[in-house]
Amino acid sequence: MASHPRAALDRPSRRTLANAIRALAMDAVQAARSGHPGAPMGMADIAEVLWNDYLRHNPANPRWPDRDRFVLSNGHGSMLLYALAHLSGYPLTIEELKNFRQMGARTAGHPELDLDIGVETTTGPLGQGITNAVGMALAEQLLGEYFNRPGHRIVEHRTYVFLGDGCLMEGISHEACSLAGTLKLGKLICFYDDNGISIDGEVAGWFADDTPARFNGYGWHVIPDVDGHDPEALRAAVDASLDDPRPSLICCKTVIGFGAPNLQGTAATHGSPLGDAEVAATRDAIGWTSPPFAVPDEVAHAWDARSAGAAREQEWQARFAAYAEAHPGLAEEFTRRMNGDLPANWAQTAAAALAEIAAEQPTEATRKSSLRALNALAPGLPELVGGSADLTGSNCTKHSESTPVTPDSPGGNYVYFGVREFGMAAMCNGLALHGGLIPYGGTFLTFSDYSRNALRMAALMRVQNIAVFTHDSIGLGEDGPTHQPVEHLASLQLIPNMRVWRPCDAAETLVAWGDAIERRDGPTCLLLTRQGLPAQARGDDQLANIRRGGYVLQDAKAPELVLIATGSEVQLAIDAAEQLTKAGRAVRVVSMPCVSLFKAQDAAYRDAVLPPSLTRRLAVEAGATQLWHELVGPGGRIIGIDRFGESAPAPELFAHFGFTVDNVVNVANEMLANS
Amino acid sequence: MASHPRAALDRPSRRTLANAIRALAMDAVQAARSGHPGAPMGMADIAEVLWNDYLRHNPANPRWPDRDRFVLSNGHGSMLLYALAHLSGYPLTIEELKNFRQMGARTAGHPELDLDIGVETTTGPLGQGITNAVGMALAEQLLGEYFNRPGHRIVEHRTYVFLGDGCLMEGISHEACSLAGTLKLGKLICFYDDNGISIDGEVAGWFADDTPARFNGYGWHVIPDVDGHDPEALRAAVDASLDDPRPSLICCKTVIGFGAPNLQGTAATHGSPLGDAEVAATRDAIGWTSPPFAVPDEVAHAWDARSAGAAREQEWQARFAAYAEAHPGLAEEFTRRMNGDLPANWAQTAAAALAEIAAEQPTEATRKSSLRALNALAPGLPELVGGSADLTGSNCTKHSESTPVTPDSPGGNYVYFGVREFGMAAMCNGLALHGGLIPYGGTFLTFSDYSRNALRMAALMRVQNIAVFTHDSIGLGEDGPTHQPVEHLASLQLIPNMRVWRPCDAAETLVAWGDAIERRDGPTCLLLTRQGLPAQARGDDQLANIRRGGYVLQDAKAPELVLIATGSEVQLAIDAAEQLTKAGRAVRVVSMPCVSLFKAQDAAYRDAVLPPSLTRRLAVEAGATQLWHELVGPGGRIIGIDRFGESAPAPELFAHFGFTVDNVVNVANEMLANS
Repeated sequence: MASHPRAALDRPSRRTLANAIRALAMDAVQAARSGHPGAPMGMADIAEVLWNDYLRHNPANPRWPDRDRFVLSNGHGSMLLYALAHLSGYPLTIEELKNFRQMGARTAGHPELDLDIGVETTTGPLGQGITNAVGMALAEQLLGEYFNRPGHRIVEHRTYVFLGDGCLMEGISHEACSLAGTLKLGKLICFYDDNGISIDGEVAGWFADDTPARFNGYGWHVIPDVDGHDPEALRAAVDASLDDPRPSLICCKTVIGFGAPNLQGTAATHGSPLGDAEVAATRDAIGWTSPPFAVPDEVAHAWDARSAGAAREQEWQARFAAYAEAHPGLAEEFTRRMNGDLPANWAQTAAAALAEIAAEQPTEATRKSSLRALNALAPGLPELVGGSADLTGSNCTKHSESTPVTPDSPGGNYVYFGVREFGMAAMCNGLALHGGLIPYGGTFLTFSDYSRNALRMAALMRVQNIAVFTHDSIGLGEDGPTHQPVEHLASLQLIPNMRVWRPCDAAETLVAWGDAIERRDGPTCLLLTRQGLPAQARGDDQLANIRRGGYVLQDAKAPELVLIATGSEVQLAIDAAEQLTKAGRAVRVVSMPCVSLFKAQDAAYRDAVLPPSLTRRLAVEAGATQLWHELVGPGGRIIGIDRFGESAPAPELFAHFGFTVDNVVNVANEMLANS
Repeated sequence: MASHPRAALDRPSRRTLANAIRALAMDAVQAARSGHPGAPMGMADIAEVLWNDYLRHNPANPRWPDRDRFVLSNGHGSMLLYALAHLSGYPLTIEELKNFRQMGARTAGHPELDLDIGVETTTGPLGQGITNAVGMALAEQLLGEYFNRPGHRIVEHRTYVFLGDGCLMEGISHEACSLAGTLKLGKLICFYDDNGISIDGEVAGWFADDTPARFNGYGWHVIPDVDGHDPEALRAAVDASLDDPRPSLICCKTVIGFGAPNLQGTAATHGSPLGDAEVAATRDAIGWTSPPFAVPDEVAHAWDARSAGAAREQEWQARFAAYAEAHPGLAEEFTRRMNGDLPANWAQTAAAALAEIAAEQPTEATRKSSLRALNALAPGLPELVGGSADLTGSNCTKHSESTPVTPDSPGGNYVYFGVREFGMAAMCNGLALHGGLIPYGGTFLTFSDYSRNALRMAALMRVQNIAVFTHDSIGLGEDGPTHQPVEHLASLQLIPNMRVWRPCDAAETLVAWGDAIERRDGPTCLLLTRQGLPAQARGDDQLANIRRGGYVLQDAKAPELVLIATGSEVQLAIDAAEQLTKAGRAVRVVSMPCVSLFKAQDAAYRDAVLPPSLTRRLAVEAGATQLWHELVGPGGRIIGIDRFGESAPAPELFAHFGFTVDNVVNVANEMLANS
């Protein structure tokens, strides 16, 4: 694709245009008395070239589906992005720039997902932006393969990334860039801000990588040693990258804080205001005479991308109209998916699947139930794209409609992520952020630790990311304590806006999957067993109440005690209740597959399930106990695990850790004795 | 160093020796009906060469300080290590091999730290073994620089690592190997089991790296394309690596499950028993006629490394004796440090530092108090080695006695880890595992997510690893929600055997550091503020009680309500108590810097601090509330944060989230109104 020609006359120099970014960045950081001027000032020339000559976007419609994506992986340079958004015509006012880093402003310290102003993802935790971008580029490829037709390329955009030394030091950059190279994501073009400086100073003392060699090893197209302050050199590099079938890394030698006469090139510009004197000196040095937050008209005019953007989108809209004429069904489907709507028959499909399971009552591991759910739901849901971090068979993530994405077969809906848990989760964020896809990724629950911050980012951004976490307890057995989650059930629940399901059988697993798919505004963790579990008997009300997160699975008249259990411990509770019942006790059993959903129910419902007067509450869950105190109260007890596991067959482990009918009955009897 | 010559006569062939590993591995996995035969069978020839020709160890004394370290980073191949330990003469009986993966056996599914049988670290979570090894190699270098003297090299050993595709896909391998290359850890020699297979099948579909190019980019000495089943080729590669000043990667082409005629070279051998038929076929194919778990005498004899090992150690002991004669003080210090004893004057130093702080009563951020503690404690504690993940100035981790370790200056006690949080934490595990050092590493608390599984591994292994987590709440202000921990305080506390401190001032910070240093059998997290905090007034008893994790900081006669607070919220509780007191209320304030330590106190102490009758308990902590329910009970309330933060100046954030005197007083008054 050719770059966009620029008007030759009356236009301020490229350096002047770049200096507008520098001035806004240093002034906003100075006004906030905190922030990071170094990266925006150092990358301003690169940004100017990319945004003015190449980036296909429309500030008036940041949701245009075929826009190029731009990701600022070095998110601390947020003022770069805000300056670009403001200058190019997104609805980000100069007042917002003046309020940089202040309460309620859109100009947060690190960029927060805000499509209206062109912020495609939240960045700051280093390495995750580039990984989101790999997910976006993969999304583009998958959607293009799915929707494009001969003569009709309606999905055809690039993903551009800025990243720095920090991103490249983070391990996740290895995971993402290795896979991007393997899958030949040629529409991914990254600019490495090679300024030789990180917070601790000159990186040579702790980061001596030959980065071009590293990325050549990944199979990337690498352009080393580009002068990041020379627009023509940058243009040549981008031109060479546009049609290369490999992802591109343009290594730009830059000066951090470029323009600040006394501080540029030092770590002092990285994360602190330059100070009034240096700001003034910078103005002199770069010849910027406007007062803070003022942009000369001719500069503002040159930056304004609204009419060019509207024209670009219009051109695409015309192409899309032709596509819709030739392929009306596909066009409708494309629109549906990019709007984030589920198929019209979704509710029917989900209900039928649940009815089938309720009738069949399979005994199986919930990881197998998860596969059953995928097999039932995925055929009507082409937007579902998933994979596993090299545990496909164990995670049961590959369903009957799965088509692998491979280096030679760019379409499909199944990704072999490799042993890259963190990368997988952050790529899934990128798949979701792109739009048109619902991503899921599988690994063992214990390795949720590796991916944890990407799940947190999904929760923070409120994007859909379905984590399939199998082998959810000591029940995995012989692999031992490194692989046995203990605290993970609870610790995932602590993440705000995270939904954690731990279903007890195929019906609950299906409902959990349904909920995860319908939940477009946040991530869901599905915690699934390795070992087989029996199906529970339920009436229609009970089936319906699974969606409430907790419900009475088995009741007694005037219950004296309630057993609350999740996942693999539900059958144990049922068995214990049976024994207690035989002994003349009245015991209720509550299944609580999703605690946060239960807690979100109204008080009437919660009190109906756990009546305040019913204070003998015994929670049984093969995990850390601490979160249960709130629900069981001081009259309650908890059978859980607050130590690490052991390597042994699962049945022996459950016995060893007290997950036996006898132990549950004994504890219940102790509670009943203390009336 | 020359390799060790082998007896030429009557010795079984190298292949036969390697086949002993193969037979033990496949038989143990078969007996356990679970496990991973593929890697031990594939790497048996490499292991045979390394252990019989190069590894300087003494099975009779696995604690010999100058032994070579061996790390099986692909820990699922645990039977390789157990077979080696058994064959070479460690006290690991054949019965233990028969009990592979059974309850209570030393032969856990993945290797668990057990020096007595030569297991130097717990592995299984991929990528962490190689990273531990980088820490071990760094430890060797630092200790060598500290202790060796001209003519006396008492620290002079290598660290050998086996690793596979999984380790190389994991991001942490990038972090560790990049830093190892930068720091030129030449005594690190790694064998890459390049078998082209991971669990999902042939890796080419998801891992197409040119790994030699990648490692050349890290500045390593790389030997590509070594036949991993050719002992002479392997010997040549090791010989070429022994004296190279760079870390070495020997890329060994191997066949996974080598010897299994129908399954070798396929993922089927990775994580499942071969099956009786294939085990029998393998016996035929490799000519192994002994029954399961039987090792022919001549094979056992050839493997037995006890006398050679004793001789090796004896040679070193003689050198050490000469060293002790020449440098008695250093020799004593070396012995102390390798024994893990603190200096004789440690308690005095710590007490004096606390007394000084108690007298001075500084107002400062606890991150600054942490630096104060380091400045007070580190001068007498040369084993303290630490650093930061590129946040040295922010984490306040570089103290007055810090000497940076750099590519050109191999000694020192301060490590610029770069932006590598996970790598840092796992390297710290390696530094601790090596012995002779107490490691610490700093980053922002929110990035504990990145390092989380390494902290878990420290807790599981019970090794000392001090995590300095600054910027511990919304109090970090403008950097916003990506950088503001919310759930991290609680979620770290959920890790079994993890100790989490959140001190409120310089005195508590000093005590926390002292506890962390004295705690040789587990990791400690120190959660520290960015913002300044006043010093609290305390009597001697109160100062002493800090070590109990929670104590009455301010009391009233017959308290009606207790405020429980941690860290930056303690002063808020004091201020609220003052207002309530003025209004005629009797309020106790409890500071609880380490909840797990408090919970570990005897009931009498706990009840004295939180009398059961005192049910109006209001916890105040700028983090997730859920863990407080246990301590405040149903009559209690919690002022915390169960949502993500915001980007704004810290004082505004505290007000926004309800951390104001007025709010605390109002909630307290509500509680007092409900008698």
